[in-house]
Amino acid sequence: MPITKAPQAFPRTEYLRRLTAVKSEMAQRDVDALVVADSANITYLTGYTARSGTDPKGLVISIREDEPTIILRKMDVPAALHQTFLERRTVIGYPENLVANPEKDGYDALIDFLFDAGLAHHGVGLDMSALSVPTAEKFKTRLSKAKIVDCTGVVAWIRTVKSDLEIAYMKEAAAIADAGVMRAAEVIRPGVQESDAIAEIVATLARGANGKVGTWIATPYLCSSPRTGTSHITWTEDILHPASQINLEIAGVRHGYTAPICRTYSIGKPSDRLRRIHEAQLAGLEAGISTIRPGITGGDVAAAIDRALDKHGVRKESRCGYAIGIDWREMTASFSEGDVTVLKPNMTFHLHLGNWMIEEDFGYVISETIRVTDFGTEVLTKAPRKLFELC
Amino acid sequence: MPITKAPQAFPRTEYLRRLTAVKSEMAQRDVDALVVADSANITYLTGYTARSGTDPKGLVISIREDEPTIILRKMDVPAALHQTFLERRTVIGYPENLVANPEKDGYDALIDFLFDAGLAHHGVGLDMSALSVPTAEKFKTRLSKAKIVDCTGVVAWIRTVKSDLEIAYMKEAAAIADAGVMRAAEVIRPGVQESDAIAEIVATLARGANGKVGTWIATPYLCSSPRTGTSHITWTEDILHPASQINLEIAGVRHGYTAPICRTYSIGKPSDRLRRIHEAQLAGLEAGISTIRPGITGGDVAAAIDRALDKHGVRKESRCGYAIGIDWREMTASFSEGDVTVLKPNMTFHLHLGNWMIEEDFGYVISETIRVTDFGTEVLTKAPRKLFELC
Repeated sequence: MPITKAPQAFPRTEYLRRLTAVKSEMAQRDVDALVVADSANITYLTGYTARSGTDPKGLVISIREDEPTIILRKMDVPAALHQTFLERRTVIGYPENLVANPEKDGYDALIDFLFDAGLAHHGVGLDMSALSVPTAEKFKTRLSKAKIVDCTGVVAWIRTVKSDLEIAYMKEAAAIADAGVMRAAEVIRPGVQESDAIAEIVATLARGANGKVGTWIATPYLCSSPRTGTSHITWTEDILHPASQINLEIAGVRHGYTAPICRTYSIGKPSDRLRRIHEAQLAGLEAGISTIRPGITGGDVAAAIDRALDKHGVRKESRCGYAIGIDWREMTASFSEGDVTVLKPNMTFHLHLGNWMIEEDFGYVISETIRVTDFGTEVLTKAPRKLFELC
Repeated sequence: MPITKAPQAFPRTEYLRRLTAVKSEMAQRDVDALVVADSANITYLTGYTARSGTDPKGLVISIREDEPTIILRKMDVPAALHQTFLERRTVIGYPENLVANPEKDGYDALIDFLFDAGLAHHGVGLDMSALSVPTAEKFKTRLSKAKIVDCTGVVAWIRTVKSDLEIAYMKEAAAIADAGVMRAAEVIRPGVQESDAIAEIVATLARGANGKVGTWIATPYLCSSPRTGTSHITWTEDILHPASQINLEIAGVRHGYTAPICRTYSIGKPSDRLRRIHEAQLAGLEAGISTIRPGITGGDVAAAIDRALDKHGVRKESRCGYAIGIDWREMTASFSEGDVTVLKPNMTFHLHLGNWMIEEDFGYVISETIRVTDFGTEVLTKAPRKLFELC
């Protein structure tokens, strides 16, 4: 039987609004067809949240058509029909003999489609940052009559400003992240293996909060003494002890929308060193929250935070945050010196006061998911903004 | 204080053995320096399992040096010092102002290192499939005096044959996957929300099995009626009911090594349609297991499975398996028509008899993690090879 449509994450009008914004950028670049290969961009424009490793898939947006066409592995067609707003005629499966085939792959099917649709002889936009070298070469060789236009970042920059519907999911995701932080405070104690603590935390991230289930497990990062100076590592088999410090970075996810949060936990009374860095980074975080408003730049936010940290004699080398949305990090705005992105209402950020380069074996994390409002900042994550002291 | 080394996943001699194999390939290609940018390849050659999104990082292997040099974000240096076998002088952090900087990024720091190390004027190997177009352009422009050699797949193909030490981790990972399958059988029942079932399953994957903790959560795929024909989607908020069929694909992970398994569950008596497809796919799986041995090709395996399925009147369009190891899927051998990879002892595969294209709203999954032995096949996953009938 034909597969049914799942309840849609967004109404069709929301996707058409997004597509209209993309087409406006295409028109400015004299592009008749835009090829979108980045998974998060495809989610944004269709609602497709399945992830199938590195199999080629792509969305073709024609300047003349209302709906885009998705080209993906034939076995992924039912998922695309089920999850997306797309009509059946705009979901095209390529045959399975193009998978792991060194001669010809799914992008050949996509290029065939461009020819069939009469889109192979004019401006074709490609997000070069999402394409490997051999794939880009294939496009250039086969589309020799087209004008290839580098459209790197076009969709990503449109994604930076969220609609109210997207903000609603960011809030639901933030509540899930909060639940994970509070569950961590319950399960972190001396004698517990890091992996057992993470088991409880990820279970919470899947169960969700407030009747809204987690729809994905973003990889949680947990490091405890003596490796709190490390970043981007996962948990180990170590057993927490009465003086352990634990740095946790997790995220809730709703329909791709990802809200991260960081908190630091101390088993027993925190050391003076830990308490001092907490106070400094908390001051930096709050300086960021009170500074952020429409019209200022990412660089301005970083400068305000740096001033607050400076008063505490602390320096943070890494940036203080970055744009977030689908699949955690957006490759756009960044809260660091020189960032010229002008903040607008409904941009969302991971405002991140993690500091890993204090000493090689000592770091600290605190962060919030925030939204730029019409006049200032709304903090979407609501877990207590403190250094958790556990016994 | 300087950070200490973590207990190493492998002895230094194991990494040097792998590097020697890589250098042998480099010599054949007249390459003095190989730049490795793929995360799984970096894990293979160093033990680094942290994952930091899309920040540039790279390993430079010099044909003249015992140890490679890793170049990554300065904030990731402590993690690299902690996790890898590398000496301090071969872990180089690039400044944080190269992050999210459109003018200059971490690959510039890597290219600077090539110049400093006298490696910028001879053969430089790049894995083009791991590099985006702008990154590859940067290498070509800045290394104008070097001979750039496409080394796509060089490290990936070396990875296909595992050492006994790697096989030991694959077995531990397989035991974790098995534990997830058995936990699913306990928690799947009518009235349970899919997300709550997944919560218990991912918690099991983190806790691990036999005293070996899970070191990563590979995204679990779960789909239940009426979407068993979909692939690569995650769970939903739906509540399982007395006639639900549930397809589950999960993996255990140990130090990057990933052992997947699929099983199908039926709440209540399976339908005739489900029972028949189970019997056919089980026959296909067992034909694969009894066929696999050194010296035959991936295409031979696919043909044997197709013959077994054909006896049951079933056709499977998608391939019957693929090479696995670090980070789940290796982009090398594939069990499909025409695959000429000759099987060797200690290659590992996900032997996959999932079938999604029976009807659009009906699919079925069963799979095992297997190893090619000197004479045949060892099945590393041990969960009951059956259609789970639950009440």
